[in-house]
Formats: sequence, C-alpha cells, structure tokens
Amino acid sequence: MAQKFPGLDSAALQRLISDVPVAHVAFVENSQPVVLPIAIAYDRGSILLHGSTGSRWLRLIAGGTAVSLAVTALDGLVVARSAFESSMHYRSAVLFGSCAEVAPSEQEQALDLLTDALIPNRVGEVRRPHSKELAATLVVRMTVAEWTYKLSDGWPDDPPEDVQSSTWAGVLPRTARYERADPAPDLRSDADLPASVRALLGD
Amino acid sequence: MAQKFPGLDSAALQRLISDVPVAHVAFVENSQPVVLPIAIAYDRGSILLHGSTGSRWLRLIAGGTAVSLAVTALDGLVVARSAFESSMHYRSAVLFGSCAEVAPSEQEQALDLLTDALIPNRVGEVRRPHSKELAATLVVRMTVAEWTYKLSDGWPDDPPEDVQSSTWAGVLPRTARYERADPAPDLRSDADLPASVRALLGD
Repeated sequence: MAQKFPGLDSAALQRLISDVPVAHVAFVENSQPVVLPIAIAYDRGSILLHGSTGSRWLRLIAGGTAVSLAVTALDGLVVARSAFESSMHYRSAVLFGSCAEVAPSEQEQALDLLTDALIPNRVGEVRRPHSKELAATLVVRMTVAEWTYKLSDGWPDDPPEDVQSSTWAGVLPRTARYERADPAPDLRSDADLPASVRALLGD
Repeated sequence: MAQKFPGLDSAALQRLISDVPVAHVAFVENSQPVVLPIAIAYDRGSILLHGSTGSRWLRLIAGGTAVSLAVTALDGLVVARSAFESSMHYRSAVLFGSCAEVAPSEQEQALDLLTDALIPNRVGEVRRPHSKELAATLVVRMTVAEWTYKLSDGWPDDPPEDVQSSTWAGVLPRTARYERADPAPDLRSDADLPASVRALLGD
C-alpha cells in the first residue's frame, strides 16, 4: 500500500511514530548516501528532528536538501515451514521531503514535543530549558511530500505440500519494553520515581 | 569513535549485527535519497542482504551504486533531571560501501546465514530451498569501505545545580523479546515447537 498525501493524517502512521520514536534519516552528501538514527516527534502534519547546533549533518539537512525518513516497527517473527516463506510482522513508513529550521518562537514547544515523544509527560516534571541549552539545540521540521506505509501481519503462507509436513509454523509476537528504573548514583534520597517513568514501566 | 578498516573484525559490531538483524539501507535514486528497512546477516567480513528478484531497488543496489547501512540498537532510556540532558543508551553502526550479487554457487549458503540470523539454527529444521525459490531470490553482498560505531551507555550527566534538585534521574534498560509462539491455524497437531523457537522464547 503506497499513498501520496499532503499531510500526515493517517492514524496508523501516527501510531507507528508514537510507538517508535527513533527513526532513520537518509540524505546525500558529496553524492554519497548517508543514513543515521534519530529521535523524531509528530507535530501537526510534519515531523520534528533535533540535535546539536554543532552537528554538521543536521545543519546540512536544515538547509533543505532532500531527505528520506524510515520509521520501522518489528512486531513479530513469521516462522514458516520453509526458510523462503519465513519473514516478519512489521509496520514500515518511508517518508520523503525536506527540512527547515523551526522559528525561534516555536523552538521550545517543538522540544517539548520531542521530549514527550520519548518520555510521555516528562515535560511537566522537569525545569524549563535554559537559554544556553536552547542556543545549543537545532530543531528542524521535515515537510513530507510523499510517503508509503506497509504492514505485514499475516500467518505463514506455506504452499500445500509444506502444510502437510510436521514442521512447526507460527508467529512469535515481539515487544520492546523498559525492564526497570535504575536510579542515578547521585540521586537525592527523597527523589521519588515520577509518573512518567512509572507509566513507561507499565506500573 | 570512528574507524576505517578493511574487514568487519570488531566483536562489538558483530554482536550488534547479531542482536539487531534488521538494518536500514540508504541509496540514491534519481538524485533522491531513499532509506528502507532490510534484514541482514554478517558473513566473513561483509554484510548479506536479500529480497525478491522483482525488487527494483534491490537490483539497483546489486548494480554497485553507493550504499549506507545503519544498524541501531536502543538499549535504554536516559532520564535526566532536564529535558536537555535526557537521551538514550544505544549502539549505532553506520557502514558505507557497495553491493554485488553473490555468485550462484554461494547463494544457498548465504540464504542459510540470513535465515539463521533471524531465527538461529532454523536452517537445520526446515527443508532445503527449491530451485524455484532460489531463482526468485536476489542475494547481495555489501563490501564495506568504511564504518563508524558509537556507543552511549552512561548515567545522566546533569550539571551540579540540577543534581541538587529532587527531580528523579536514572536509566531504564530496554529489551525486545518474543512473547509467545502462536501456532499457525493450519498446523498439524503433531508438529512440536522446535528448538529454534524455544530458544527465541528463552525456554
């Protein structure tokens, strides 16, 4: 399933971005393709990315060069009766567009969205950013011109002669989770585990 | 840490590839960057990728165009006392090189490595590939000219004035696991759960 669309108004796509806050962005530098992992957030029909103002490649894409962004969730393993039919359950979005630096008046709100994308509701638990921190951070907005979304979620599709065999086949659902919260060695003894972290742990 | 090297003879890199059998490959098509998810396997100093012979983009990279490949593991969340210092534990390898189709004499062995990368020791449990399946599958080998490896694994690095606050800080280790094995609806009743699947479930 591939779609062209003006805004990212797909519930499936937004759910994927929410489930997978780390994407892979590709761009061309000196005729060479480069792909890097990066945290992302969805914001009103576009995608936010951020990093250090000292990042050469982030400054490159902030200049408007063409970018491609992949958001991928591995949801399971499809164990078929043959190697050929074995595969994965996945959700895969590939977006194409270009980026521009967000306006200074929008930077704090954009950073709040990026923080809450990684740790939902953390923004309300921490101090506001210092001006020095804002000055050291480059936030860019990716405007999406085109995107595709693929979903793989079926059972093994073995041919009849393999189905007759006694070889096992099935699906192994896959989940990623946070196991526990290890407090920082210099944590104050009266620092309680916050609601944002408890929620990530499923408490 | 960035290195140039002739072969992928790094234990950390091989461990990462083994932990994360799905990578993201980027290439340039009509001057546009494109990034896609793909299963990979390590093989004697190079990387194997595969797909359908009908895949236009796989045929493109099999032709030797420049590619970049990112292998990324998210190992935890760094919850600092400020949004600015919050980050992730990760292992990130970015490889640069080009691909060529493997020789017909090497195709079956390469496919075995790709199958076992996803489901270790599955190859010994399934029938051999049919010649029709081999003919429908394109296997390419990426020769790596250059690579970088980055590791982030520390505690939150909050400045002294933030450490004095009672805001919680710490690390949430993250793991991905297979939860259970759902048998295919058409599975024979005498098909036992194989050793490969039991191992993936941690049984």
